[in-house]
Amino acid sequence: MFISVPATSANLGPGFDTLGLAIDLRNEIVIKPARFHSVSTKGEGADNPKIKKNSLFLHIFHEQYRKLTDGKRATFRFEFTNRIPISRGLGSSSAVIVSAITAAHLAAGVKYNKRKILNTALRYEHHPDNITPAVMGGFNVACLEGERVYSKKRRLPSYLRAVLVVPDRTISTNRSRNVLPKMYTKEEVVYSLSRAAYMTALFMSESWDLLRIAAKDKIHQERRMRMMPELFEVQKTALDHGALMSTLSGSGSTFFNLAYADDAKKLAAVLAERFPQFRIMTHGLDNVGVIGKS
Amino acid sequence: MFISVPATSANLGPGFDTLGLAIDLRNEIVIKPARFHSVSTKGEGADNPKIKKNSLFLHIFHEQYRKLTDGKRATFRFEFTNRIPISRGLGSSSAVIVSAITAAHLAAGVKYNKRKILNTALRYEHHPDNITPAVMGGFNVACLEGERVYSKKRRLPSYLRAVLVVPDRTISTNRSRNVLPKMYTKEEVVYSLSRAAYMTALFMSESWDLLRIAAKDKIHQERRMRMMPELFEVQKTALDHGALMSTLSGSGSTFFNLAYADDAKKLAAVLAERFPQFRIMTHGLDNVGVIGKS
Repeated sequence: MFISVPATSANLGPGFDTLGLAIDLRNEIVIKPARFHSVSTKGEGADNPKIKKNSLFLHIFHEQYRKLTDGKRATFRFEFTNRIPISRGLGSSSAVIVSAITAAHLAAGVKYNKRKILNTALRYEHHPDNITPAVMGGFNVACLEGERVYSKKRRLPSYLRAVLVVPDRTISTNRSRNVLPKMYTKEEVVYSLSRAAYMTALFMSESWDLLRIAAKDKIHQERRMRMMPELFEVQKTALDHGALMSTLSGSGSTFFNLAYADDAKKLAAVLAERFPQFRIMTHGLDNVGVIGKS
Repeated sequence: MFISVPATSANLGPGFDTLGLAIDLRNEIVIKPARFHSVSTKGEGADNPKIKKNSLFLHIFHEQYRKLTDGKRATFRFEFTNRIPISRGLGSSSAVIVSAITAAHLAAGVKYNKRKILNTALRYEHHPDNITPAVMGGFNVACLEGERVYSKKRRLPSYLRAVLVVPDRTISTNRSRNVLPKMYTKEEVVYSLSRAAYMTALFMSESWDLLRIAAKDKIHQERRMRMMPELFEVQKTALDHGALMSTLSGSGSTFFNLAYADDAKKLAAVLAERFPQFRIMTHGLDNVGVIGKS
């Protein structure tokens, strides 16, 4: 079996817990029936003893496999190739969840569709903004109703690039959530709600030139950026050098910049020069989402 | 001069101060240069001495006319034909503002475009969700940035109808604003923000069948409906009898129901039978917005 799943960037500024898109930067997993359980890991996290074990993947895979086969037990060899930076706001956990559920269906020989994978993934990650593009690919709007994800996808054009600025350290998701207030003023709500809807309309109509107006937020973004103040300078530099929008990716620490392919190279060069301590990665966007082949 | 401006339904559930659409139900104004000022009014409000004077229209018209002509004074005859119910959440004030500004440009012989009319209208009505569709027609997403309206329009198909339930009394806009809390929880914010974005995606892709999921709200709608509790029964009846969505129009008291043309007649009949005290009006949607002819 072969499973491939894309990185994702969620929130996209005002689209808190709602908007996300898929990036053509993929983790791949090869799984083979085997007499003994074994795991190999290459790439991101391979030198980290905790991550190397892929315990979240294995937990979800086995739980789902047992469920789908009425408790059957089997052993497999797992070969992980990780390309999505870990704990940097690029959906590495959602990629693990989505790929493990897909793998379990393949291993059990149970037919599935993407909507089923998505609703199962929601049990492990109760925010839909990363898991939805990880499953579907493209730009996605998602909302929750009665333990189900309702979402709408829009394909992304091939002339756009994600220019990612990946810091040398993490912002913990817990800390990143705790820094948010419990209550918001009506003005903050309208500010972000109107921009989340406007950004959706711009993506749905491929109108890129006003994205930077739509990408502003008063719910989470600046509060989180204050935990790593260099990010304000990253954002300003990106917007001054060709980025169509520049937003904190998920709860950070990565910054997501969208640019026309023609501008992306220069933008990446400027960012690399100004922020030598951070990794700059340029990738196309993804319209496919999770792939599973038995 | 001839000016025509459509009714509008704003908020559309979760799209608080953001989403709105235009309805093919129009106020018309004929203006002629004349030696003496005079006004005639037919239709909605013609029997109300306060509204009959059209003082808001005349105030804005003269203020803008003076501005555009560097203080020139002139007298006109104004003939109003009002079809938009007044103070019922169907954008009657926004229609007055938008038509008065358009009329002033025509009377002054000053060229204009719709974006200019819209940004001028914002000075008289600081929420963009009615004025934007009144100017542009169609379904609109609007946000404010630096005293300007940024908006995106999507045309509405001819096979849809607005089935309006217009109560026999008003909910005052002030009372309707005062009933809203000052602060919202993160859960309320995400609930409505995600649905405002999802509704936008559904309108932009002409996907009507999940609108009823997208149309739910936790920011304003139920809090306002409690001021006229029959509206809960109106909403339930509409959703049980073919409405694709059923939302409080603006801050009320009208209920806006969207339906396929084929279903609208039956829906209107059911509503008329159950709510004989309310006016039921069925209209197409509008994609033109304000019209001005000199």
